[in-house]
Amino acid sequence: MHFFIERDRFVHDVQHVAKAVSSRTTIPILTGIKIVATKDGVTLTGSDSDISIETFIPKEDEDKQYITLEQEGSIVLQAKYFAEIVKKLSGEEIELIVQDQFAATIKSGSAVFNLNGLDPEEYPRLPQLEEELLFRLPQDMLKNMIRQTVFAVSTQETRPVLTGVNLESDNGVLHCTATDSHRLAMRKTNIERNDENLAFENVVIPGKSLNELSKIIDESNDFIDVVVTENQILFKLKNLLFFSRLLEGKYPVTKNMIPTQSKTTIQLKTKPLLQTLERALLLSREAKNNVINLKTLEAGLIEITSISPEIGKVTERIQSQSFEGEEMRISFNGKNVIDALKVIDSDEIKVEFTGAMSPFVIQPIEQDHYLHLFSPVRTY
Amino acid sequence: MHFFIERDRFVHDVQHVAKAVSSRTTIPILTGIKIVATKDGVTLTGSDSDISIETFIPKEDEDKQYITLEQEGSIVLQAKYFAEIVKKLSGEEIELIVQDQFAATIKSGSAVFNLNGLDPEEYPRLPQLEEELLFRLPQDMLKNMIRQTVFAVSTQETRPVLTGVNLESDNGVLHCTATDSHRLAMRKTNIERNDENLAFENVVIPGKSLNELSKIIDESNDFIDVVVTENQILFKLKNLLFFSRLLEGKYPVTKNMIPTQSKTTIQLKTKPLLQTLERALLLSREAKNNVINLKTLEAGLIEITSISPEIGKVTERIQSQSFEGEEMRISFNGKNVIDALKVIDSDEIKVEFTGAMSPFVIQPIEQDHYLHLFSPVRTY
Repeated sequence: MHFFIERDRFVHDVQHVAKAVSSRTTIPILTGIKIVATKDGVTLTGSDSDISIETFIPKEDEDKQYITLEQEGSIVLQAKYFAEIVKKLSGEEIELIVQDQFAATIKSGSAVFNLNGLDPEEYPRLPQLEEELLFRLPQDMLKNMIRQTVFAVSTQETRPVLTGVNLESDNGVLHCTATDSHRLAMRKTNIERNDENLAFENVVIPGKSLNELSKIIDESNDFIDVVVTENQILFKLKNLLFFSRLLEGKYPVTKNMIPTQSKTTIQLKTKPLLQTLERALLLSREAKNNVINLKTLEAGLIEITSISPEIGKVTERIQSQSFEGEEMRISFNGKNVIDALKVIDSDEIKVEFTGAMSPFVIQPIEQDHYLHLFSPVRTY
Repeated sequence: MHFFIERDRFVHDVQHVAKAVSSRTTIPILTGIKIVATKDGVTLTGSDSDISIETFIPKEDEDKQYITLEQEGSIVLQAKYFAEIVKKLSGEEIELIVQDQFAATIKSGSAVFNLNGLDPEEYPRLPQLEEELLFRLPQDMLKNMIRQTVFAVSTQETRPVLTGVNLESDNGVLHCTATDSHRLAMRKTNIERNDENLAFENVVIPGKSLNELSKIIDESNDFIDVVVTENQILFKLKNLLFFSRLLEGKYPVTKNMIPTQSKTTIQLKTKPLLQTLERALLLSREAKNNVINLKTLEAGLIEITSISPEIGKVTERIQSQSFEGEEMRISFNGKNVIDALKVIDSDEIKVEFTGAMSPFVIQPIEQDHYLHLFSPVRTY
């Protein structure tokens, strides 16, 4: 193998692919990045067997030449060093040469690196997905959906299926749901599909995969194609493929958990509520339980309190924008509500209570495409 | 105690004072910030017994009123919570009230915090320094001197005196020196002094103290007064006092360590050399010893190499700006040299070697107010 490649484009793609590589893998070849040079361009692959990322740098793209190929070939190089080395190279072009015995030479500017590589034949093949269950949505929409749900996945391995975000779709609508059984975040959006009859459920993507994917996709409205199979999901961007394993197991049915009526409905400004809860959390965090108390007062006033026996207490009153229904007194995990308020882009929200011991719902005003559900905390 | 105070100024000073407070202290009262309100203003104090910081917020400053005093008094409040609470308050003004039993109330905007305080009478007094050995220098100069020396202090407690920066002065010149016995950084500057005969040596300030001080002082050329006593040093800024304990023990005499003549002198551009060494360090860091090799070639070329048996090797040639004397072949700790190059503000440097097994010196071109000394590494 022997080629010259434009430095910035190569560095950019190496950093993307390196995101999939884990230094803690038990499969030695997976600590490397696989580099394949053909007459069409250079393909890079990184994988930790849960996530695999493949990028392609074409020889030419939009009239710009990226690669000068001298000889086709392939090599696997240690991701950790290789990614750092190319980032620190100062030339505008990088030359990569592989001789016998997987000995690679990287030249750029005045620097010459001789690196020991690994046999590319040992590198596992990426899953070959039959293109079924295909849909597409804009990248920025997908990025938002990840941001607005993935924080709510469980971090505990006791119920592995809850460490992922569940996708289901019917009638051209995609639902993403995450829950750790104390709180739930749900987001839905319209999607484009190949087949009018597209419908699926129980497609559970590990939270970690979505966090990595989110770092790669842009805030652009270019479409991203999604292929779903029995145990893999594939996100297809221009010149980049992102594969993730799906979690096994039955995701809980969450639709029935969401209350359909409420006893008390309060409308509040999002940001002042968030700031009030953050102040209250300063004390309840110390008490280790993150409990914050909410009480309705006369004239639409809401009182937020929290107590730490050692440090003290905080009391704050905020005026609701509107108030309907019964008086309410409830305690909840303040950190969970703060997490949700941080991802709500709307200036005003609606809180719907069904009782002091029943789950309550927070939603942006006049928008039903996302919803956050919280269990109250028993304080006696 | 009862006063109203402008939020931003109070938050600013509380953050400064909180820097001195350690959560790992064995003296419970030192986990707090002491607040004293008098008719002149509010004084805040934080200390971990090594470092103490006292700031003063005057009632009025430059025609702006900062404080409305209702009643004089004092209190000690837990630094960790207090600093976070005031930072998160949203009002433009903060009201602080202390009732009996050290119960404090903080009000701002719609928030009311009730905090348990501690008895201010229990708070230790700051050292009372007799004003002897007084000198002054611009703040930005002091900040630079700290930056250019403190990185070289020892992090090992085997020789505690080497964990500090040594100050000595004679004839109106201040020398700052740091060494971990493998490398040495020295910086000198002119100072203003009260007494023409001012002279001192073996004033060793803990590196940690200087790092904290550096965060507080600005890039301005306002003067900072320095008072040195037997076991304390005091830096006096406008409305802020910074006390540090001095390290006990005899600091090594470093003057004789610095070679006075050289066998080989090379001039190099600072930035390209730094980048070359950083690339070489990628491999030698892996070999755990950080060893980088330098060899002079014909025509003023310099070859930098490093080797990691597992990963590979790197070779890079750079052109020196000038070269005088014998050919040289030397190995050194690359990280130490990189640390020094990062704090050298000059575009070009001069390296002076006295032999493959003797210490070498790096200095900015045509400047003798700072100097870095390195021991070579034996590689066989």
